[in-house]
Amino acid sequence: MRVYIDAMGGDNAPDAIVAGTVTAAEKYPDAEMILVGKENEIRDSAAKQGLSLDGIRIEAASEVVTMEDNPSEAFRNKKDSSLCRGLRLLKEEDGAVFVSAGSTGALIFCATMTVRRLPGVDRPCLAAVLPFETPVMILDAGANLEVKPEYMEQWALIGSIYYKKLFGKDSPRVGLLNNGAEETKGTPLQTESYEILKNMKNINFVGNIEGRYVPYGRCDVLLCDGFSGNILLKYTEGISKVFLGYLKDTLYKSRINKLAGLMIKKDLNGVKEKFNYKNYGGAPVVGLSKPVFKAHGNSDASAFANALGQAVDFVRGNTDRELKSASEYLKKVKDERKSENV
Amino acid sequence: MRVYIDAMGGDNAPDAIVAGTVTAAEKYPDAEMILVGKENEIRDSAAKQGLSLDGIRIEAASEVVTMEDNPSEAFRNKKDSSLCRGLRLLKEEDGAVFVSAGSTGALIFCATMTVRRLPGVDRPCLAAVLPFETPVMILDAGANLEVKPEYMEQWALIGSIYYKKLFGKDSPRVGLLNNGAEETKGTPLQTESYEILKNMKNINFVGNIEGRYVPYGRCDVLLCDGFSGNILLKYTEGISKVFLGYLKDTLYKSRINKLAGLMIKKDLNGVKEKFNYKNYGGAPVVGLSKPVFKAHGNSDASAFANALGQAVDFVRGNTDRELKSASEYLKKVKDERKSENV
Repeated sequence: MRVYIDAMGGDNAPDAIVAGTVTAAEKYPDAEMILVGKENEIRDSAAKQGLSLDGIRIEAASEVVTMEDNPSEAFRNKKDSSLCRGLRLLKEEDGAVFVSAGSTGALIFCATMTVRRLPGVDRPCLAAVLPFETPVMILDAGANLEVKPEYMEQWALIGSIYYKKLFGKDSPRVGLLNNGAEETKGTPLQTESYEILKNMKNINFVGNIEGRYVPYGRCDVLLCDGFSGNILLKYTEGISKVFLGYLKDTLYKSRINKLAGLMIKKDLNGVKEKFNYKNYGGAPVVGLSKPVFKAHGNSDASAFANALGQAVDFVRGNTDRELKSASEYLKKVKDERKSENV
Repeated sequence: MRVYIDAMGGDNAPDAIVAGTVTAAEKYPDAEMILVGKENEIRDSAAKQGLSLDGIRIEAASEVVTMEDNPSEAFRNKKDSSLCRGLRLLKEEDGAVFVSAGSTGALIFCATMTVRRLPGVDRPCLAAVLPFETPVMILDAGANLEVKPEYMEQWALIGSIYYKKLFGKDSPRVGLLNNGAEETKGTPLQTESYEILKNMKNINFVGNIEGRYVPYGRCDVLLCDGFSGNILLKYTEGISKVFLGYLKDTLYKSRINKLAGLMIKKDLNGVKEKFNYKNYGGAPVVGLSKPVFKAHGNSDASAFANALGQAVDFVRGNTDRELKSASEYLKKVKDERKSENV
């Protein structure tokens, strides 16, 4: 199993990427880890950290896509970047999976152009996980700001396969983010999507989900436009930090509070961990013909190692057959709609 | 100052409404509190709770608008409801303000049809407050799912006046909810709104606000479409409850944790209170020619009394002149655009 890694992507690249890759390579000896990027920087980083790169392949790429790069320009003008070259290798060598902690926009654009879409899927999307008791996978978490009901249909089906493999849950419940529970709620995007989703026999649609019930695990897969998904994902990060900050302030407020804090420290860490994105690996780009994962831009070595582990586990799950059959279904639906419209 | 109150609206009506009104009437002796609703139920509720209705006027209304009523049908078919009659009295008697804990949709529709819009405003919206260190007022919190850039312009200006009066802060910072900080981010709604907002000299526009920074008080007034606003508002409610639940579970986990919980109980209650909507009174319907406030549907007596207090304070703030000048400005802008388009 060949795992391609963007060594230059993310706030802590290449150090965190190199260290995370070394950890994952030890844990998954049957996977071939391939670091793509500036070879000297990768080797220097490993040496500096006292890490051995034995058994890890390095593929040289001279350029780096930054957060400031426009995605389409990055694809056109930075052909020899770790991102573009890694994605090409994934395709050309028939690799298993690609993982990057770099720019989300560039990753999705370049992956769509290089690896191509799964037949039947119009637009790949980002599937991020909200860290609740029941993990909630949001599709789209930010790749497509303007969305059509058919995209929702495609994401519902493909997203269910990803959820099942990543969290080991059969027929995950699919919900539609909306401003009310009733079928008639929302903009035309929601009402038209509802109509399609409720008639799909190959997903477990549970209806509209209001914002207040998202953290309560009323659904596993949550469908929304990328604008709402982006807001929801980032807001969760912000409000969790604010809440943990309030708690910390309380526990440092007086000597007696500090003592109480020590008494419950271990259990409170458990609460903190619930909101730690590092435990949740990466976010898959859903709807491509090969798996591609986005690790958090701020990943440290252990977060990146988790993202790699998640990617490896996903590939091991043998999703090929299921994705192929979903793709066939979606192509058929598209053809039927086309002939109805002729 | 005449304060009209929908005695029949909300989950705990009429008891919580009657009790909250009695409390507010004592606190604000110069305001005339007018309970609109089924007179016998109002009197029975007061008697049952051992409350005196001295000094409180009762205006009879035989019907009740429920959560199930379609807003436009409620307006057409329930003319003698506490909601419709209260709003008519507000207009006919030139009252100061109307407060209801009933259906948000019906309140906004009936208020818009009865009290009418402030000239220059196309669509009134709901302005709800997120309970952070710096209160963040979201407009629109759910009244208009499909929004035009001009609505944002109107809400920015009127919302700033409401924020200033409600929170005593001059030139509140106005932000635009978006999926990134750059001017070019978002759908056409966001980019076109940005263009208008940055050129407004009578608001303090601070640019795009990403979801993660909403809880950090980067802006006071947060502009968004009603779909996103509804999701944000309800999600905040849900995630706060989940977080407080995690905390409670931790503090009940063992005897030592329970002891620690007792030691910090008072300070932890402070954290809980930050997320208690009851401390935040009502949500104004912004853009009407008279102030109308929506109290939380689940309001108990003290929450409803707070909402009444907020409404009274708002009216005392003498916003008339400012709202009139904002209205003149918005009319002028509309006229200029019209003549440009001719």
